[in-house]
Amino acid sequence: MSQTLRDRLFDEIDQWTLIDPHTHINPNQPASETLADILGYHYYTELAHSAGLPRDRIESPDLSPKEKVALLVPTLESLDNTVQVSWLIEMTQQLFGFKGDRVTASNWESLYEAAAQRMRQPNWSTQVLEKSRLRAVFLTNDFDDRLDGFDSAIYVPCLRTDDLVFKLSEPEVLQRLARATSRMPESAESLHAAIGSLFEYFSAHGARACAISLPPGFAPSPVSKTAADRALAQLLARGSDADPAARRELSHFVFWTLAGFCADFNLPFDLMIGVNRNVYTSGVYQGRDLFDSRVSLIQYGELFNAFPQVTFPISVLASVTNQELVAYSWIFPNVMTLGHWWYSNTPSMIEHDAAARLEAVPKTKQIGYYSDMYKLEFALPKFAMYKRMLAKVLAERFVIDRLWPEDRAVALARQILCENVERVFGSAAAQG
Amino acid sequence: MSQTLRDRLFDEIDQWTLIDPHTHINPNQPASETLADILGYHYYTELAHSAGLPRDRIESPDLSPKEKVALLVPTLESLDNTVQVSWLIEMTQQLFGFKGDRVTASNWESLYEAAAQRMRQPNWSTQVLEKSRLRAVFLTNDFDDRLDGFDSAIYVPCLRTDDLVFKLSEPEVLQRLARATSRMPESAESLHAAIGSLFEYFSAHGARACAISLPPGFAPSPVSKTAADRALAQLLARGSDADPAARRELSHFVFWTLAGFCADFNLPFDLMIGVNRNVYTSGVYQGRDLFDSRVSLIQYGELFNAFPQVTFPISVLASVTNQELVAYSWIFPNVMTLGHWWYSNTPSMIEHDAAARLEAVPKTKQIGYYSDMYKLEFALPKFAMYKRMLAKVLAERFVIDRLWPEDRAVALARQILCENVERVFGSAAAQG
Amino acid sequence: MSQTLRDRLFDEIDQWTLIDPHTHINPNQPASETLADILGYHYYTELAHSAGLPRDRIESPDLSPKEKVALLVPTLESLDNTVQVSWLIEMTQQLFGFKGDRVTASNWESLYEAAAQRMRQPNWSTQVLEKSRLRAVFLTNDFDDRLDGFDSAIYVPCLRTDDLVFKLSEPEVLQRLARATSRMPESAESLHAAIGSLFEYFSAHGARACAISLPPGFAPSPVSKTAADRALAQLLARGSDADPAARRELSHFVFWTLAGFCADFNLPFDLMIGVNRNVYTSGVYQGRDLFDSRVSLIQYGELFNAFPQVTFPISVLASVTNQELVAYSWIFPNVMTLGHWWYSNTPSMIEHDAAARLEAVPKTKQIGYYSDMYKLEFALPKFAMYKRMLAKVLAERFVIDRLWPEDRAVALARQILCENVERVFGSAAAQG
Repeated sequence: MSQTLRDRLFDEIDQWTLIDPHTHINPNQPASETLADILGYHYYTELAHSAGLPRDRIESPDLSPKEKVALLVPTLESLDNTVQVSWLIEMTQQLFGFKGDRVTASNWESLYEAAAQRMRQPNWSTQVLEKSRLRAVFLTNDFDDRLDGFDSAIYVPCLRTDDLVFKLSEPEVLQRLARATSRMPESAESLHAAIGSLFEYFSAHGARACAISLPPGFAPSPVSKTAADRALAQLLARGSDADPAARRELSHFVFWTLAGFCADFNLPFDLMIGVNRNVYTSGVYQGRDLFDSRVSLIQYGELFNAFPQVTFPISVLASVTNQELVAYSWIFPNVMTLGHWWYSNTPSMIEHDAAARLEAVPKTKQIGYYSDMYKLEFALPKFAMYKRMLAKVLAERFVIDRLWPEDRAVALARQILCENVERVFGSAAAQG
Repeated sequence: MSQTLRDRLFDEIDQWTLIDPHTHINPNQPASETLADILGYHYYTELAHSAGLPRDRIESPDLSPKEKVALLVPTLESLDNTVQVSWLIEMTQQLFGFKGDRVTASNWESLYEAAAQRMRQPNWSTQVLEKSRLRAVFLTNDFDDRLDGFDSAIYVPCLRTDDLVFKLSEPEVLQRLARATSRMPESAESLHAAIGSLFEYFSAHGARACAISLPPGFAPSPVSKTAADRALAQLLARGSDADPAARRELSHFVFWTLAGFCADFNLPFDLMIGVNRNVYTSGVYQGRDLFDSRVSLIQYGELFNAFPQVTFPISVLASVTNQELVAYSWIFPNVMTLGHWWYSNTPSMIEHDAAARLEAVPKTKQIGYYSDMYKLEFALPKFAMYKRMLAKVLAERFVIDRLWPEDRAVALARQILCENVERVFGSAAAQG
Repeated sequence: MSQTLRDRLFDEIDQWTLIDPHTHINPNQPASETLADILGYHYYTELAHSAGLPRDRIESPDLSPKEKVALLVPTLESLDNTVQVSWLIEMTQQLFGFKGDRVTASNWESLYEAAAQRMRQPNWSTQVLEKSRLRAVFLTNDFDDRLDGFDSAIYVPCLRTDDLVFKLSEPEVLQRLARATSRMPESAESLHAAIGSLFEYFSAHGARACAISLPPGFAPSPVSKTAADRALAQLLARGSDADPAARRELSHFVFWTLAGFCADFNLPFDLMIGVNRNVYTSGVYQGRDLFDSRVSLIQYGELFNAFPQVTFPISVLASVTNQELVAYSWIFPNVMTLGHWWYSNTPSMIEHDAAARLEAVPKTKQIGYYSDMYKLEFALPKFAMYKRMLAKVLAERFVIDRLWPEDRAVALARQILCENVERVFGSAAAQG
């Protein structure tokens, strides 16, 4: 009973055309060119590396795309239990007409050709968007990205601010900021103005969110302009040799400034909380980051209190923080739940975390899912994974446990997958 | 199969008459007078606020009860996924004859009148107790409450000690203690005696437990009388300006003193661990508290070792602490599990936490549930939620997974819902 | 459907002959002599104590085995909900022909005799191994154990190193090291050599792993030989009065040295992370240890980076650390998951933790289970508990949710229960 019920709910949910509110898509090359773009995704390279393939072979600069796929395919056997590989299989079946249930040394070449053939079609990215039922995807733009040359109704700009907050003490980042804003900031005042001009540019070009990922130890607090002046002066004088306290002061000043501009420009501030960068120093590209689950949203209490007019959609990296996210979203009007991130983006974690959110957070304050993808082909299987878990939770915990009619469960799914995304991320997205 | 099994178990479990071992009921006004007492419960006001209703409107002093309900009802639409709203619906159906499955702008007025009519009946609170199959509810008494004028076999006094431990440095609390015990404590000795006289009074009036809620950072330890004398002297001299170290010393002294009197007066000491007060400073009344899940029961190791003769029924606010609670209850004779508290009092949390307890803690050391209610009408739907999850866990993890006969599963439920409450909280409760 | 599917999967899984990669078996007395060896297991004495039986009665030196059983049996009634007692029942049914589903005051004596009769048979331990379908069990050897007099193909030595790392400042431990290596270490250099000679001895005698249990606060880091020399000198001069910093330095030096020798001798280094020893100071023997769930694998980041050539099979005590274990195993080639330890070795914890591992960690990097037993009779019911949960996860999350054919699910189980154990712990085990 429960299984057919789940299937019915999934079939309903799977029909809607969605906006993907967080991706790393390059709008000038949104889809893949070969299967190497797919298998080169860090989810596969890091797992292949973890299962024993040496990094220097994976990252050899001499590999052609086809050689890269040939190198990686044999490792899939060790990984075929993972949901990450199930994304690959579902994608190849749905997008490339693959008939098997495993990609192996004996069948990958024909798949490679079939994929390449489709990817060469001039409207391939449009086809993928249509097959994936996406009408817009949010980007992750560096603060100095140029936001032209693409359709911002489909590829919606977002201002990603990790570099500004955590790397401003690197001379090269400061130079980038100076170039982007046409002057080198020399005081807290001019740094504030420089950041403001970034918001003006992004806002004028259709940006719909400001976003940042944060380490578990970060606890934002305001910094006076005097203290920021002092910290910036030291930074300008000593660069990367500035002492850690000064760098920390500046981080906090910039972070607080960003929150202020989110208020001024009416942009949600996506906080992705909990990542430790570069823990595995010999890991493959993008496969070095991990986490410390000892983090609490109480670190953000002062921020949430200080900016009641800013909406904070929040992703947590550790599932053990999910209950705090539920509680903070249940109490704070300006805090809401945002998707299932990275190491929590697997079926059992999604099921656990989504169930807790759906039963206690106002339904208007939950953004169900985003793909976090680098290439468009991944939205389809990732969203499908989420929708299956959502259908499971709705079937078991609402239709069965709470005796809801099925259409009410479907309407709840629609609220968190469609309506909230459009309302929270505003009109640009709604037009997308 | 599992669904009908769950229903059968629930039907059995739902027939028993219970004691509710922790509530905030006012024995002189235990039930609601209008639906505003129901919708004014912080679970609804804080969710309504979180979903966008301004606090000044919710807390406007000019609102009549009917206006308050009229204000809050439209926000229920945004919250109707939450289990908190499902309590409301089940209660209105069971207690007020409501036929719908949502309370809306178009049907609330007739519900309001139907509820008011029943609430006006002189024996309404008795009716609610009977319909809810409760024969006693435990109170949460301030240390200076007068414990007369009500039937303490039904409304069982409990000494709540948050103020004594955490607010004794407020002059007003010290005055209350002086008034309640007829003298101002001037030394550790006389403070000890004052607390002792509170225990005498409470014990003589049928109190069955001492209770306290504790912030995540608290780690009790003994304080010498000399140190306590010094701290109290500073407090008496400087009031709220006493330095934090002195206030902390005094908190610890009072806490340890309470544990000692629990031993002397043979009272269980309910510890409700993990709440941070007033995190959301602009929240509605009682809707400001949150938590930091980074807490460990090892903070209480010294206490559990020092007072083997005191029973500590323990509630944890964060579900991630539940496994520690299971382990500490499995090892320490004087530690037991107590209900599902606040942010962990939702179905998926209850299911997770109850399953872990039922499979590893002696069955004699688990208190299944308490309602934490402020008005009697809430016991019925809250206990029903718990019993459904209990029936689910028993069906899936005992009858199915472990091949238990159903009557054995029912007997286990009876142990943790009835027998343990009566045994642990003693004869007064047993007579209730 | 799901139930019969689970049964089919379990029946397949239950047929294989396994290696148990972590136990506390004494190879010279591997099986029990009376039921007192079974009921004297700390899982029963600590629960009986927790449920009210005084420690001095449980640990009375005057008790005969039969008296001990007579003392403990009546407490089983309070514990019969626990999975620990279900191990007892399943074991007595499977190994001693017990027909009941509870051991009580009225039936234990005949069970005691039936068990004693079988245990007296000269090949009892072999019978138990066969009935339990085990072909080898790993031991937990003190560093100064003599490794002869038993068949190391069946009883596989492992070098347990808690004493070396955490108790070297106790004169008695230092003496044991001196005796085992024929000289007292007087410098970092000679301490290094002494540890090396232990590895030589263990390796020559078929040891297949080095292992250690670690407190939640431990964070390994390298220590220079100069610092270690200084710390050791202080230790030799002052014994247990050496200051904590010196003892800590030495702990870290020894730990890092062990990891180095694991590399040299090609031994996996089992890390069992998270136990606080002796928290309940008045607990029964082996029933005093608990944990603090505030631990992170980031504490081991430096270690994992420093020893890429060492395999670290990792057990975590707190289920809330399981997601970190999944993530670290997913990224680091030298980190893998190892069983379900102690307070996490209960069905709901296993289900939760195994599901997360199976969906995201390469299947070649998971060791499904070990029994941790002190007597051979426990492998059967403990492994059965694990296999049931594994069958449940595979049925629900792979066959149903991901549409896997059943034989593929069975092959995945075989990988983590058989193949990985043989590959990771090497040829000695494979010959076992």
